[in-house]
Amino acid sequence: MDSSPVTVGDLGEQKLLQLVQGFCNPDVVGDDGAILALDRDRHLVVTTDVLVENTHFSDRTTSPFDVGWRSAAANLSDLAAMGATPVGLTIGLSLPPQTPVAWVEGFYEGFTACGGPWDASIIGGDLCKSSIVTVSVTALGQVSPVRTIRRSVARPGDAIMVTGEHGKSKAGLELLLDPVLGESLPDKMREALIQAHQRPVPRLDVLPHLQIVPDSVPIAGMDSSDGLADAIVQICRESGVGAAIDLSAVPISEAIAQLCWQKNEMWERFDFSDAPLPSEIKAMIPGTLEIFRDSFAQSEIRNWVFYGGEDFELVLCLPQPFANSLVYQLGGEAKIIGKITSELTVRAIDPNDTKPPWILEQNRGFQHF
Amino acid sequence: MDSSPVTVGDLGEQKLLQLVQGFCNPDVVGDDGAILALDRDRHLVVTTDVLVENTHFSDRTTSPFDVGWRSAAANLSDLAAMGATPVGLTIGLSLPPQTPVAWVEGFYEGFTACGGPWDASIIGGDLCKSSIVTVSVTALGQVSPVRTIRRSVARPGDAIMVTGEHGKSKAGLELLLDPVLGESLPDKMREALIQAHQRPVPRLDVLPHLQIVPDSVPIAGMDSSDGLADAIVQICRESGVGAAIDLSAVPISEAIAQLCWQKNEMWERFDFSDAPLPSEIKAMIPGTLEIFRDSFAQSEIRNWVFYGGEDFELVLCLPQPFANSLVYQLGGEAKIIGKITSELTVRAIDPNDTKPPWILEQNRGFQHF
Repeated sequence: MDSSPVTVGDLGEQKLLQLVQGFCNPDVVGDDGAILALDRDRHLVVTTDVLVENTHFSDRTTSPFDVGWRSAAANLSDLAAMGATPVGLTIGLSLPPQTPVAWVEGFYEGFTACGGPWDASIIGGDLCKSSIVTVSVTALGQVSPVRTIRRSVARPGDAIMVTGEHGKSKAGLELLLDPVLGESLPDKMREALIQAHQRPVPRLDVLPHLQIVPDSVPIAGMDSSDGLADAIVQICRESGVGAAIDLSAVPISEAIAQLCWQKNEMWERFDFSDAPLPSEIKAMIPGTLEIFRDSFAQSEIRNWVFYGGEDFELVLCLPQPFANSLVYQLGGEAKIIGKITSELTVRAIDPNDTKPPWILEQNRGFQHF
Repeated sequence: MDSSPVTVGDLGEQKLLQLVQGFCNPDVVGDDGAILALDRDRHLVVTTDVLVENTHFSDRTTSPFDVGWRSAAANLSDLAAMGATPVGLTIGLSLPPQTPVAWVEGFYEGFTACGGPWDASIIGGDLCKSSIVTVSVTALGQVSPVRTIRRSVARPGDAIMVTGEHGKSKAGLELLLDPVLGESLPDKMREALIQAHQRPVPRLDVLPHLQIVPDSVPIAGMDSSDGLADAIVQICRESGVGAAIDLSAVPISEAIAQLCWQKNEMWERFDFSDAPLPSEIKAMIPGTLEIFRDSFAQSEIRNWVFYGGEDFELVLCLPQPFANSLVYQLGGEAKIIGKITSELTVRAIDPNDTKPPWILEQNRGFQHF
């Protein structure tokens, strides 16, 4: 017998989730939430999300208004991910006694501001004392059983579409952490990225447009809160399929492209003259950086777009003609970015490039133990 | 302008709750939970409860199994308090990475063991990293609109009944904190009190019996999780009425009576011979203790019974004949303990005693900021 017990940290997130799922009711535990069959034409969707101070937010990058906004957004996005419209939200809030009352007011103002347009009101909750701020939100939504979006129903040949651009939330976070980085970006661009990070908008506006898809056609999908790559990989895994992503079709905001170029340009601005390096190495640096800059910037853009996370867009898989109609209906930055394949890998290829395909992986970022 | 901001601790729990309620949907926020009118003959009840390590439980008095059990019990009791049967529960669990996996297993085993008899399964949740354990549970239940139990519908003349004894959870906690205290209690009695603290049973078993009350007769009530006095006072306040409690009718477990006597007997065992007190005071101590022991024990019993809290019984107010039938149906320790009055005070009187009435107050214990 080992005297030191196995900890949650030793086990890791995936195995911990499996352990916990063993205690759950398999008939109702769904993708982003539980599905309760209330009656024949209405299902209740229930999702829960916990945000912890210093794990999910800090005073440095997030105002109380924004903590409230993001708490609501994350849960409303989980409802949208299943095709459900909001019925109400509950908030379990733990607070240290020394929390300013203004923080609490800001939090609830942000929460209700995010939910307001969707009639997603706070219907209850609990308040209690703790040593750190913890926000636990449960959102209730309703959906017609035939219009429930599921991860497991993607079929080879389906088009993969996104409802908007990715990587903006990650870019916004980088700008908050390093304000110098965005100095040469136009104000509007910089503000839009920061806004994308602080006040992501759940894509509940997409749901009414799904009516153009016949009830008999299943829509596979989920939200991209854990990253675009993660969403595609999870849909493929749950559906037993693969995907081919066309990198040239993935919408990339001009602001992100500029920012990534600039971020790598900054490398050239470093002064290596005083660096304790042999002079022949020093001589090589500018040329080397010049050669790799393209590649650095390109791969940085792709990392932000596919692995940045927290963009709260929807990734949907459905037959090409309906995907085309939906993209047309939604307008904006909605785009078809690839298709579902029977081959099981999830590959991303730039058709203008001779490089081998890039294999996408599930996001391992964020909240592992 | 004051430079130091007003904190949650400065504001206090009541005002903080008022502030938060200002952001909630007043149409659905109910007594122990929200009420959503899904259709004409079914309402959905939603309750949320947060338990925080070191505020609500500690390793000293609560095993992981019991933390899980009590998390489920508190929420299921909130459903019972509104007359609702469980539909499912979600758990938002924050854990430090160094938490033993066995703790997590124990927690979920306890949670499902408590919910098991009521078909109250876990339908979802979230897991995340934190520096302390926080458990946020949301319970969903359903109730026929006419059979919803509300705090606000007690009427003068109604009998006030309890579904069981009070003070046992408090007694169990005292035994855990001070094992010497219970040494002379019979094992079974001691274990029953500790069980009452560690594994309180939500009184969902009461609900089917409410069918003997006609639909046209409203049932006022709530659970006694914050104490028996608190429940009576809250029902009276919400209904705009008062209450007269008959202290001789309140069921008191033999174990509590014994324990309180014994606890006060212990005073006499203290050795004051070395105490730095004037000798004339020392000489008075034994006689003084003898005189007051009766009164000490009696008031300790009443404090445990009325203010102990966490017994999770139901306190119901309904016309006397139906209360009689319900007490008969329930059996066990269910008792009528008084009646609702039009006079607004909440008084408790022992008819065998000449002392003035005892005025009950809302519980101020537990989780204030």
